[in-house]
Amino acid sequence: MGLKVLFSAPRSRWDEWRTPLTDAFSAEGLEVDLATDHPPEDVDYIVYAPNGFLSDFTPYQRCRAVFSLWAGVEAIVGNETLTMPLTRMVDPGLERGMVEYVAGHVLRHHLGIDRFLGTPQGEWEPVVPPLASDRKITVLGLGALGAACATTLAGLGFDVTGWARTQKDLPDVRCLGGAETLDQALTGAEGVVLLLPLTAETENLLDARRLALLADGAFVVNPGRGPLIDDDALLAALDSGVLSHATLDVFREEPLPKPHPFWTNPKVTVTPHIASETRPSSAAKVVAENLRRAEAGEPLLYLVDRTLGY
Amino acid sequence: MGLKVLFSAPRSRWDEWRTPLTDAFSAEGLEVDLATDHPPEDVDYIVYAPNGFLSDFTPYQRCRAVFSLWAGVEAIVGNETLTMPLTRMVDPGLERGMVEYVAGHVLRHHLGIDRFLGTPQGEWEPVVPPLASDRKITVLGLGALGAACATTLAGLGFDVTGWARTQKDLPDVRCLGGAETLDQALTGAEGVVLLLPLTAETENLLDARRLALLADGAFVVNPGRGPLIDDDALLAALDSGVLSHATLDVFREEPLPKPHPFWTNPKVTVTPHIASETRPSSAAKVVAENLRRAEAGEPLLYLVDRTLGY
Repeated sequence: MGLKVLFSAPRSRWDEWRTPLTDAFSAEGLEVDLATDHPPEDVDYIVYAPNGFLSDFTPYQRCRAVFSLWAGVEAIVGNETLTMPLTRMVDPGLERGMVEYVAGHVLRHHLGIDRFLGTPQGEWEPVVPPLASDRKITVLGLGALGAACATTLAGLGFDVTGWARTQKDLPDVRCLGGAETLDQALTGAEGVVLLLPLTAETENLLDARRLALLADGAFVVNPGRGPLIDDDALLAALDSGVLSHATLDVFREEPLPKPHPFWTNPKVTVTPHIASETRPSSAAKVVAENLRRAEAGEPLLYLVDRTLGY
Repeated sequence: MGLKVLFSAPRSRWDEWRTPLTDAFSAEGLEVDLATDHPPEDVDYIVYAPNGFLSDFTPYQRCRAVFSLWAGVEAIVGNETLTMPLTRMVDPGLERGMVEYVAGHVLRHHLGIDRFLGTPQGEWEPVVPPLASDRKITVLGLGALGAACATTLAGLGFDVTGWARTQKDLPDVRCLGGAETLDQALTGAEGVVLLLPLTAETENLLDARRLALLADGAFVVNPGRGPLIDDDALLAALDSGVLSHATLDVFREEPLPKPHPFWTNPKVTVTPHIASETRPSSAAKVVAENLRRAEAGEPLLYLVDRTLGY
């Protein structure tokens, strides 16, 4: 019968994950009984995504680890009933998708592509953008996703500063570490990309005071987490022209409610949380690898630190 | 008094080129008298851009070489009075600008960014694009610009095929060479980037028959030369849905005339010949290097082959 693995996620996800997970477990030589309805007391492992039925982990006494399908775990990291090891998803497919989203939107703002779209004007007005090497971009957060984005932007020629809670070292990226260097990282930035985890320390990190440090007419791209930005301060900075544009993929409430001013502000681009989509084919292999490690008594990959919150 | 170098370009260009060229000549240790009005019989070298006053090179009997400020030389390569060596511009700044334009617009079409712009809908409809690794992009032309764009797109993860008149070899790019492989390069392509020189052989190269080889819903990005595409065939392919979009930076007539249907077709993005802008600061160094070579009797860089036309 093998290991009993509970798939806890919205039912609509079952169809897309069942086969990739089953295939990945087989490829690791694991005998697994994957289902959405194992009795709690039988469950060996849980594959988890938010918004499923599971909020109380107490009955899962046998469960030896919870594998999140999401990179961000703020929805469960504070759940006191979750006492077993918890891993985050670091999916190569998600990382590639994130890099493409960030590179695409940063280039879009850098090149001023929007001015050539929409109502055609018939106006031939050549305005040549500066080269990327003359454009200062700051990436906040240098985890797997932030580091991949920062190095890709540097490879495209941008003048990239990366900031993280701790000092990192990335090729062709000016890395700054620690809270005391955050203002320096933001000062004069013409574009800011937010890829920080959401913690008590990062909530509303981009507030009115820090937005005022950016270069005049800077743009913001947030594919990280909605609450990293103070929404009211962002709207005020857009209104005053301090910011030229914000491209937002994540929000405090998702789906973004229809009356929200982000929907109608011409300086805001709303994308529906598509930048950081986990790809089942590549992510299933990460889950299977971690299950094999757990069974073999090896250290788990991407283990969440409950104190740090990610 | 030094070498007499004639600057022949629209007068509006003089202001932006004078200082960079003077500085670059000095840096090479060349004594140069740069002006827009040397008597033809005194001129040692000509720095040339189209649409200046110069069309008859016959009186320039002393002139030992013509240095084009443009990468494309089709406007003068057939000029029978131009009997001295002619060089093309291969400007590192132009190359970076082209790479940024191509990467930006290919990512824009790949990610489907346009659907999130313009009139806000308030509709939260997550559609996750495929990864770049599942997107076939074909780059036509693998000269300095095409090669740089093809390798950058491959670096971003795209599945890139490159085609040129002769076989090339580029890292992570499937290179095809010769007329007999062109259909193969286009078949199934989901995006096509045109960076070919304009010659008798490449005019109307992307015609109705070849457009029909592309994947359904493919997009075209043309920052090369307008006449590479059969305009009527392009419009027909957009109307029928064979193509989803064309982003065009170059046209048969520039500025693009106001009544042209490209201006009003919602599936066409018109940019005003901004992708391949030569940057005076970097390009002036290339001119100075070639002038030094000419004086030293060394082979010129980027010498145009009159038979090939580039």
